[in-house]
Amino acid sequence: MRNHLNLAHTIHKDCVHYGWDNTIAPVRTVTPGETLLFECRDAGDGQLNADSTAADVLTLDPDRVNPVTGPIHVEGAEPGDALKIAIEEFIPSGLGWTAIIPEFGLLADQFTAPALHMWSYDTAIREPAAFSSHASVPLRPFAGTIGVAPKQTGRHSVIPPRHVGGNMDICDLCAGTTLYLPVEVPGALLSIGDTHAAQGDGEVCGTAIESAMDIAVRIEVIKGAAPPAPYFETSAPLRQHLDAKGYFATTGIGEDLMQACRDAVSAMIDRLTASTRMSAEDSYMLCSVCGDLRISEIVDAPNWVVSFYFPKLVLG
Amino acid sequence: MRNHLNLAHTIHKDCVHYGWDNTIAPVRTVTPGETLLFECRDAGDGQLNADSTAADVLTLDPDRVNPVTGPIHVEGAEPGDALKIAIEEFIPSGLGWTAIIPEFGLLADQFTAPALHMWSYDTAIREPAAFSSHASVPLRPFAGTIGVAPKQTGRHSVIPPRHVGGNMDICDLCAGTTLYLPVEVPGALLSIGDTHAAQGDGEVCGTAIESAMDIAVRIEVIKGAAPPAPYFETSAPLRQHLDAKGYFATTGIGEDLMQACRDAVSAMIDRLTASTRMSAEDSYMLCSVCGDLRISEIVDAPNWVVSFYFPKLVLG
Repeated sequence: MRNHLNLAHTIHKDCVHYGWDNTIAPVRTVTPGETLLFECRDAGDGQLNADSTAADVLTLDPDRVNPVTGPIHVEGAEPGDALKIAIEEFIPSGLGWTAIIPEFGLLADQFTAPALHMWSYDTAIREPAAFSSHASVPLRPFAGTIGVAPKQTGRHSVIPPRHVGGNMDICDLCAGTTLYLPVEVPGALLSIGDTHAAQGDGEVCGTAIESAMDIAVRIEVIKGAAPPAPYFETSAPLRQHLDAKGYFATTGIGEDLMQACRDAVSAMIDRLTASTRMSAEDSYMLCSVCGDLRISEIVDAPNWVVSFYFPKLVLG
Repeated sequence: MRNHLNLAHTIHKDCVHYGWDNTIAPVRTVTPGETLLFECRDAGDGQLNADSTAADVLTLDPDRVNPVTGPIHVEGAEPGDALKIAIEEFIPSGLGWTAIIPEFGLLADQFTAPALHMWSYDTAIREPAAFSSHASVPLRPFAGTIGVAPKQTGRHSVIPPRHVGGNMDICDLCAGTTLYLPVEVPGALLSIGDTHAAQGDGEVCGTAIESAMDIAVRIEVIKGAAPPAPYFETSAPLRQHLDAKGYFATTGIGEDLMQACRDAVSAMIDRLTASTRMSAEDSYMLCSVCGDLRISEIVDAPNWVVSFYFPKLVLG
């Protein structure tokens, strides 16, 4: 599968770091125009496997969460430039996990106990992945974390995203998408990780289908074109894998966007538990891997409308 | 075009009101299962026409904004029931407008002067609508305002949406979608208005392609099934009319969702003005009628990611 990629470099999965720090020595220097393969560990750094249970979620070592592979020094990249990252292909591992991690996720106050679902999926991603007997989720792999080193000194947590990218969890950063990040230090110092087999807009329960995989990207530098924040360009429709049967959608309406988001997702969980045999925990995790959180209206003051879209297809 | 609809009632456009009030006398009583045609005025109540200019936006009478046609008394609908509204068809007028209204819209602080674009479009909605020479916008008519009377007494502004619906501006409330609203007063007292020929998620500049049109809906009552907030079900893919060429997307990343929304849209306007011949005002209006505001990530505390998606198709 890799043969057609014309890879100039493979960045091995032993080359990881756990925070952003512009003093971390680059593991490789690459030339603009080259295609690189990043071997990415899952966001749990291998601490969860097929034998894991919900109890194991509680013992995850937080210092090992969200490892990223890199950093890569890109020749000629200087502060003020844009780093162009064309996402070419994913080579998925076929194993993944979704968890409810206490004190994490949009509805952390409602879901205080740990939960874990282990996934086994078609590495060719032609078949949807089974979620117990409840649902089948079409897959579209992407990288949750793509970032460059910030100019600020010190070690910065890998969890929050920033204007230099990082843990953005934008589910459309899939094959065929091109991402642009601002370069802030010489060589850019690019790292990639947190690969996901599927996720909806929002990643509402806090995790996607977390899954180790390799990702091939082609790197270029655009001089003097640093954007104020990441932007990207997709090459195809975004939801063709999910939208054939339409959607169920719930709303949250009110003065606070965050509360409206919470209300919309909570209402969807209520509907799923009422109309299927899924538990609230399973519904929440399924929402996270295939449902989309969207802002329907943000101008009719004082009340905004957030809608949460759940694709009917996944329920068969 | 109306012959196949088997209409039981036509609610004429002289039957409008300008606020929600459960003491407004119903203009018609209908039986569940019937299909009704609502003749809807545009949100400007006819105050803007093909000869209007930006200056006319300043003289809009606020007491006449967003008229809704109705209210309709639905036989047997009681507090605690759900009103099911199957949206069957739109009969568009072919004329519309999009405006920047001072002190209104997501970026009201950046856009303080009025602007107006008048649209003339194919009433069969087979052809996209021209936005000057800049863009062609595929159309998908929907009703911005569908609501029932709240149980609270008094007159309530028609501008903000509420848990009983109203001015939700959800662009997927198009033909083929079914909406469910909670009934709070006997007969429900349903009204519809604010029809739009096209709009993206967010309605970011505050207006869509505002356009008078008729809308056919089939009404049913589901006993005892009042939802806490509106929900809906779509019957088909949502963005097939726009997504064939993919999207440009900008991001806003930070601790406040509203600011992240503003940053994402502002960045898109910057990109459009830099890459096309459009003014910032035109870019803002075009974003409102075809761009989508989405929450990419809402769990990686303390920073959330909002993305604004602009369909490449509209630029040719």
